Amino acid sequence: MGLLSTITAPEDVRRLGPAQTRQLATEIRDFLVHNVSRTGGHLGPNLGVVELTIALHRVYDSPRDTLVFDTGHQSYVHKLLTGRQDFADLRKRGGLSGYPSRSESEHDVVENSHASTALSWADGIAKANEIGHHDDKHVVAVIGDGALTGGMAWEAINNIAAGRDRRLVIVVNDNGRSYSPTIGGVADHLATLRTTRGYEAFLAWGKRALQRTGPPGRFAYGWLHGLKKGLKDVVAPQGMFEDLGLKYVGPVDGHDVSAMEHALRRAKTYGGPVIVHAITEKGRGYIPAEEDVADRFHAVGKIHPETGLPVAPSRFGWTQVFAEELVEIGRRRPDVVAITAAMLHPVGMAPFAEEFPERTFDVGIAEQHAATSAAGMAFAGLHPVVAVYATFLNRAFDQVLMDVALHKAGVTFVLDRAGVTGADGPSHNGMWDMAMLRIVPGLRLAAPRDEATLRAALRAAVEVDDAPTVVRYPKGALDESIEAVETLEGVDVVARHTPGDGTSAPARVLVVGVGAMAAAGLAAGESLAAHGLAVDVVSPTWVLPAPERLVKMTGDHDLVVTLEDGVVDGGVGAMLAQRAAAQGIRTPFAHTGLPVEFLDHASREQIMSAQRMQAEDAVRDALATLSQE
Amino acid sequence: MGLLSTITAPEDVRRLGPAQTRQLATEIRDFLVHNVSRTGGHLGPNLGVVELTIALHRVYDSPRDTLVFDTGHQSYVHKLLTGRQDFADLRKRGGLSGYPSRSESEHDVVENSHASTALSWADGIAKANEIGHHDDKHVVAVIGDGALTGGMAWEAINNIAAGRDRRLVIVVNDNGRSYSPTIGGVADHLATLRTTRGYEAFLAWGKRALQRTGPPGRFAYGWLHGLKKGLKDVVAPQGMFEDLGLKYVGPVDGHDVSAMEHALRRAKTYGGPVIVHAITEKGRGYIPAEEDVADRFHAVGKIHPETGLPVAPSRFGWTQVFAEELVEIGRRRPDVVAITAAMLHPVGMAPFAEEFPERTFDVGIAEQHAATSAAGMAFAGLHPVVAVYATFLNRAFDQVLMDVALHKAGVTFVLDRAGVTGADGPSHNGMWDMAMLRIVPGLRLAAPRDEATLRAALRAAVEVDDAPTVVRYPKGALDESIEAVETLEGVDVVARHTPGDGTSAPARVLVVGVGAMAAAGLAAGESLAAHGLAVDVVSPTWVLPAPERLVKMTGDHDLVVTLEDGVVDGGVGAMLAQRAAAQGIRTPFAHTGLPVEFLDHASREQIMSAQRMQAEDAVRDALATLSQE
Repeated sequence: MGLLSTITAPEDVRRLGPAQTRQLATEIRDFLVHNVSRTGGHLGPNLGVVELTIALHRVYDSPRDTLVFDTGHQSYVHKLLTGRQDFADLRKRGGLSGYPSRSESEHDVVENSHASTALSWADGIAKANEIGHHDDKHVVAVIGDGALTGGMAWEAINNIAAGRDRRLVIVVNDNGRSYSPTIGGVADHLATLRTTRGYEAFLAWGKRALQRTGPPGRFAYGWLHGLKKGLKDVVAPQGMFEDLGLKYVGPVDGHDVSAMEHALRRAKTYGGPVIVHAITEKGRGYIPAEEDVADRFHAVGKIHPETGLPVAPSRFGWTQVFAEELVEIGRRRPDVVAITAAMLHPVGMAPFAEEFPERTFDVGIAEQHAATSAAGMAFAGLHPVVAVYATFLNRAFDQVLMDVALHKAGVTFVLDRAGVTGADGPSHNGMWDMAMLRIVPGLRLAAPRDEATLRAALRAAVEVDDAPTVVRYPKGALDESIEAVETLEGVDVVARHTPGDGTSAPARVLVVGVGAMAAAGLAAGESLAAHGLAVDVVSPTWVLPAPERLVKMTGDHDLVVTLEDGVVDGGVGAMLAQRAAAQGIRTPFAHTGLPVEFLDHASREQIMSAQRMQAEDAVRDALATLSQE
Repeated sequence: MGLLSTITAPEDVRRLGPAQTRQLATEIRDFLVHNVSRTGGHLGPNLGVVELTIALHRVYDSPRDTLVFDTGHQSYVHKLLTGRQDFADLRKRGGLSGYPSRSESEHDVVENSHASTALSWADGIAKANEIGHHDDKHVVAVIGDGALTGGMAWEAINNIAAGRDRRLVIVVNDNGRSYSPTIGGVADHLATLRTTRGYEAFLAWGKRALQRTGPPGRFAYGWLHGLKKGLKDVVAPQGMFEDLGLKYVGPVDGHDVSAMEHALRRAKTYGGPVIVHAITEKGRGYIPAEEDVADRFHAVGKIHPETGLPVAPSRFGWTQVFAEELVEIGRRRPDVVAITAAMLHPVGMAPFAEEFPERTFDVGIAEQHAATSAAGMAFAGLHPVVAVYATFLNRAFDQVLMDVALHKAGVTFVLDRAGVTGADGPSHNGMWDMAMLRIVPGLRLAAPRDEATLRAALRAAVEVDDAPTVVRYPKGALDESIEAVETLEGVDVVARHTPGDGTSAPARVLVVGVGAMAAAGLAAGESLAAHGLAVDVVSPTWVLPAPERLVKMTGDHDLVVTLEDGVVDGGVGAMLAQRAAAQGIRTPFAHTGLPVEFLDHASREQIMSAQRMQAEDAVRDALATLSQE
């Protein structure tokens, strides 16, 4: 790592000669494989942008010029070139974030890792530079081809194109796959553009050949070049971007630093918005990643660097159960179809897709379209199951409300990675879903606690044909099964503790563990019972609409303790309290849940502890509340 | 109205001859001007689609074939042709909805009037038809050029293009203006396509001229036609849609029923997705509308049909005050810029745009881009003010959360038409904002009660440079000023009632009137005082984050009454109750607010009454709650 260790800031990169930049690229690639295999992280995307990022820092002067990385999945190389080379604690508390982070560096701008936002950021920054007369400041957005399938990228392109004299460079990092192969019209168009590499090579050959022949040849070259536009329309219909008013440069080999630099310099001096189309390979230079078809190297847990095999196989138990149950449902119900937003594998829809390819729709990174096209399918007689990460449903709130709920469409939404996710930082925590969905009329939401309740919730959800139904569960291993000792109108009582001595009537506590917090609820119940209290622990799988029986039960207790892995403000616990109060029930509540704050990256366990989300926290609050009464 | 009155269903339209269709179009236009001028409604958009809609119903067989109208602004003609000709109570309770409505007709499919959704609906329906082997069913979406600037339309086009063999027709109703002139790259591209009308005319002339000359001429025509694709690339770079994989038909004169029918029949028989580009004029055939530049005829109140002047000038007082204050702020603060999502006039940004054109950005119907580009501008030193209707912010929830709030961007959002709007039906009520925004970390929200508090809130909002700030107010005339008798840490006390006799300590009631509900709060306070209660009425302009002083005040009372024009579940009243409970305050609350339900169209007053949102409702609840204690 001789050269890399001498790079402390972007100006060090700009001083390198051509051979040195190639050496630097090799060292960075080794560094990434070596380090990310130990910590886990976005290995594939970063291997794909090594040369591209080096070229960016050689042509542009960050932070004076602004570099915006869409999703931030591909910012590790940028970190290495901007003075951040200690990757030992990547994505761990106190270590480097897995995404750009303003608190880490003045070179980082956008921390949001939801896709397709970079172009809007860049448009805003370019407009501000123009208004402030900072004509010497440049703005570059790096966006993957997959993210171009997201609607807001198109909103931005439409606006960027309207600023004909505003300088802004969009680098399309085109590896033909975002999470899995990118699909749709945009992807096909990019693929067509990619084929013009042959054409560019032909032109370059023509230039060399003709210029060697002296003046007449140079004339011939000029004529040839004059034909370029026409030729291109035949060879590749690249018109789309130019029709929209954007200068198109490319396609460029994104693994050739000199070619990338040349393209970026052309773009930089052009007096308006430019698209630089860079062709890259995700996982470039790392054989296990290059050979992978299911794109498991997009983000990895800890792996063995030679083989790429997991050191400790991750057990996404919840996802796996969903995957199995969806196939079961699909076999029984030919009207059930699957919709994913570019996350076929991560959300567990691949087995369904394999068995029912014609009933599976990957819509791209397009949650809005996922929701509304599902409403259309429901109207026409199907039952769609839309599976996304919980945090990404935020982008389709309007569509869930106005297309699915208003139209009483029977659509099932499955929210994976609900609650605290941890290492991926603030934008990946799926903590907003329950408070947000609570205000959608008619919506039903299940938060299962274990495998059996997850399967039952899914089976029940696809039976609902007049409303949106949501099933949400966390990231990580599945909790052990928790049996109900009694079920009261759908509310499972999972434990009853009655103090043994009977000398006095103890205070009665109702513990409500929402979803995966049922286990913490059980533990809290045991602890409270050990304090001599009478405790009922319940696990209501269906929490929206408010379970009426559970609301009534709050009136039979002296204290209600709620635990949920979502924001506590306006969450399920608050809803129960509000409903109880509306019925004249005056039982006090003690809520355990997440504050309305953005949570820095750390492990799930660290966050749960720091945010006082554990059984002992609920017990402490409960005892304090009881002592006030 | 001889012909129109004989049309009871689409098959009646299909029976007409060419002259009769022209007569029908004339009668419909007269009907619309005559009726909509009396009731108010979307006059301009419907005058623009008379022939287009007639052609649709002649070529397609609704409801067997599915017609989807984007936003539904342009569905009056469709209503007239599908058995709904009683427009006397249009947009009134019990009368026809101003939008498609499933409860009115089996010919209506999509009721959501948020823009850009129709293509996703159509994609879903087409996919379902394919899976169900209903190859004989057709799907047509009608979408305005303005709605193509919305991101989800692009998500849909990308997916529609991926279904190469799936038949689906997109009619682009291109009038060059959605609310005001459509801007951006898409609009420019459509404009370029429009200019090919000359080219089409040239081709048509060539065909006639050459065919007259016999066989050699016909050969020449064939040759000419063979050149068509190449020629078009020169005359008009129409490639964009075809590059994406969509067959393009057009441009077509949308006011020529025969031409539209011809184009639709071509599209119907094509074996894949087709765009039919229809050129129309908004307000066609109605001189006041055709001559209007500010597009006030998009939606009208009651007008005089001859002159187009308002019968009773509508007084959007809130909007007007915002418009004035924004200009004032703009003069003082060169860093303040205005962003609108295709609603420059309706949200009151036109005066600012006139004085500061270079600081005004109309981003199209693109709320997501509005929010995120604002975050970019704030990063680069500006303070953007984003003004939208409250209901449309739902579409940018993810961006407000992850781009603006997470990045501590100083952006002011101004939400017009918050609360109950009424006649525009369920999708226009701005009732979700407070409950939704409550879960955004760091966000501040002001709900001013009158002109003075609105101006003060706006001035305070643009001073905030580290968080999103929201100012929300309702549709309609501004309420009369309400003076504070005392201000406690930002919480205005607007009335204090102390019973006179002093014989016993009366129950103390705290009435909290949120925003424009302050007037109802005052009235409720007076009524409660008349019942012998001690009443404090407060109007907290800033309701997010929870005003701590107000939370404390709840502990000094025996009952808290809250009134808000938003969903009561998880709303401001619920937040106060939750915060109070967390501090051990046990004062009961009685909440007045909207249920989590979709509200059918009716007047604002009718809805406020039906939903028990008036002062007397709050009083009744308050007395009932007190009697339970």
